[in-house]
Amino acid sequence: MINNLNFEIISKDGIARNGLLHLNHGTIKTPAFMPVGTGGCVKAILKRDLEENGAQIILGNTLHLWMRPGMDIIQSHKGLHNFIQWQKPILTDSGGFQVFSLKELCKITEEGVKFASPINGSKLFLTPEKSIQIQSILNSDIVMIFDECTPYQIGSHIITMEEACDSMKLSLRWSKRSMDEFKRQENKNFIFGIVQGGFYENLREESINGLLDIGFNGYAIGGLSVGEPKEYLHQILEFISPKIPDNFPKYLMGVGTPEDIVNAVYNGVDMFDCVMPTRNARNGWLFTRYGNIKIKNSKYKNDLNNLDPTCDCYTCINFTRSYLHHLQITKEINASMLNTIHNLHFYLNMMNEIRESIHERKFDIWKKNFLEDRSSNI
Amino acid sequence: MINNLNFEIISKDGIARNGLLHLNHGTIKTPAFMPVGTGGCVKAILKRDLEENGAQIILGNTLHLWMRPGMDIIQSHKGLHNFIQWQKPILTDSGGFQVFSLKELCKITEEGVKFASPINGSKLFLTPEKSIQIQSILNSDIVMIFDECTPYQIGSHIITMEEACDSMKLSLRWSKRSMDEFKRQENKNFIFGIVQGGFYENLREESINGLLDIGFNGYAIGGLSVGEPKEYLHQILEFISPKIPDNFPKYLMGVGTPEDIVNAVYNGVDMFDCVMPTRNARNGWLFTRYGNIKIKNSKYKNDLNNLDPTCDCYTCINFTRSYLHHLQITKEINASMLNTIHNLHFYLNMMNEIRESIHERKFDIWKKNFLEDRSSNI
Repeated sequence: MINNLNFEIISKDGIARNGLLHLNHGTIKTPAFMPVGTGGCVKAILKRDLEENGAQIILGNTLHLWMRPGMDIIQSHKGLHNFIQWQKPILTDSGGFQVFSLKELCKITEEGVKFASPINGSKLFLTPEKSIQIQSILNSDIVMIFDECTPYQIGSHIITMEEACDSMKLSLRWSKRSMDEFKRQENKNFIFGIVQGGFYENLREESINGLLDIGFNGYAIGGLSVGEPKEYLHQILEFISPKIPDNFPKYLMGVGTPEDIVNAVYNGVDMFDCVMPTRNARNGWLFTRYGNIKIKNSKYKNDLNNLDPTCDCYTCINFTRSYLHHLQITKEINASMLNTIHNLHFYLNMMNEIRESIHERKFDIWKKNFLEDRSSNI
Repeated sequence: MINNLNFEIISKDGIARNGLLHLNHGTIKTPAFMPVGTGGCVKAILKRDLEENGAQIILGNTLHLWMRPGMDIIQSHKGLHNFIQWQKPILTDSGGFQVFSLKELCKITEEGVKFASPINGSKLFLTPEKSIQIQSILNSDIVMIFDECTPYQIGSHIITMEEACDSMKLSLRWSKRSMDEFKRQENKNFIFGIVQGGFYENLREESINGLLDIGFNGYAIGGLSVGEPKEYLHQILEFISPKIPDNFPKYLMGVGTPEDIVNAVYNGVDMFDCVMPTRNARNGWLFTRYGNIKIKNSKYKNDLNNLDPTCDCYTCINFTRSYLHHLQITKEINASMLNTIHNLHFYLNMMNEIRESIHERKFDIWKKNFLEDRSSNI
């Protein structure tokens, strides 16, 4: 037996919905965006600023944390929350996505995945059981099953239906083993399954049905944003989201741009994670209401405007684009810090606006205005 | 005519003293430590955290700011305070120290210093007049005269008295030109002279007398911490500090360790700047009450203690040494951020304790305890 996840849907507008997800470290309002805290921190931002900007839950990466600091250190801190001093909910991925990104350096068998540590070359073996054991030690509020993230392309060819089918079926068997291990650990948190199947609708349907048979606390849509043409994301999302029963939280993994997120909420998705706001911040790529800004561009050298006239984050309240341009050009750590505050504020504030507009049954209008503003590129 | 600087000495304990230095952007309590904000920011810390940790005044580097962003940008922001959004006092160096650190890439004449920009190789010419013009545009609360920082060694030989004398006399002529330009600019801020003369007491004395004849608002001791044996610092400091009349602020440039600062306060010094707390932070070298810690050391891997048991900074209140070790090992920007908060807090809190102990006429006891604690290396 696993614990029952209390997910309340409190308002709806079309298929889009507002929910309350009650986890062991607190309740989060959905739709929610989860900043990515890879190896024990969200890069270039302090937890105080994360909280001030409205982060409710962050994501940790199992593979990174397993390799460094290692589970003995996490255990002596009694879990990831204490180690990183983030007492709100944490979701962890299973490590699968990261392992497979090593590509030729990893070998997949029925049992699991053998690979060489990118840190020190030591041989590691990750299995569904191992992944769940690690996530149990981390004490993640939401544990993700260990699966194979089906790629869009292998070498030069787009993955065939047969290949995608084999991959999806392996993932289903690993999902079952993940759930068995989760129960064996008597884990009191919650576990989500991940729908795979590539870009084949029949495989996606087989995947969700198999996962529903096992019976998870929530369902993620995986294997998107893996290099496919943009229209596939929309097509698969529109197909698969309604197949996940509405009483479960729906989580679209690794997505994406503000536009992708708005579109996914429109299709009933409740949870998101993406490195885009944080990684792009460090590269000087900034999200604003009126389009994206590459702050290194020389046209901002003497631009005395604030970054985003609609934004009230610490960065926008205090500094000119000219100053942010200067910090980026001179490669100051402070550029990454100020840009990260802004980009995360942009994403988290967007989620706020989404939730409010759904609550007021004005999501369609909000969505239209937001997308228009974004594409205006003032 | 230049404005009269209001520097009140409010209490004394031996030669050590507490003062109030009234500048155009606010009053600072001395003895004061000035965090270094080289190119428009104190690296890896937000101004909010600088203020929370008790920074009263920061230092900016004329040469860096002249090269980037350039004076047109600073002018359109109406000064450095607005550009970097630090509305408390700022002291700027004259650019001399940085130019001379380029060594063989710069050529000194009576008129000034020719050098190639380390950014783009373009030929630049810095003179006393130019330096003061730049600092006037920056609107620095305290402008430093342009001088030659006499080195301890040239090539393989320790600088001779003749060389040190020539250098000191050039600096005196440049000091006069700096003052003339400061007056020509009708600058409403304050200007400090810099005592040079290497490690020759007679030259140091000639230097301070020459500067006093010109008549500055305050006097800095330059040309120390330039690679000389430690005892020279103490010797020159003990010799020269009493030669600066007590009604002027005394500023020891570029110094130093906590122990150096405590010793200099004991010799009547009021102001300090040093990159040590910030630069060392980024390298994982942390100052604590009970000695210094290299956080990368594997003995901290599973150390569940806070960094400094006597410290109440954000870093020490929240995190274990184990976590800080992990961030440093994984080269996270967050390591630099948390370490910088702690090291600056350590320095600024030390200055607080110094001021309180002088006020209570217990500086000697405080100093003894502090130096004992520091050397205990628990």
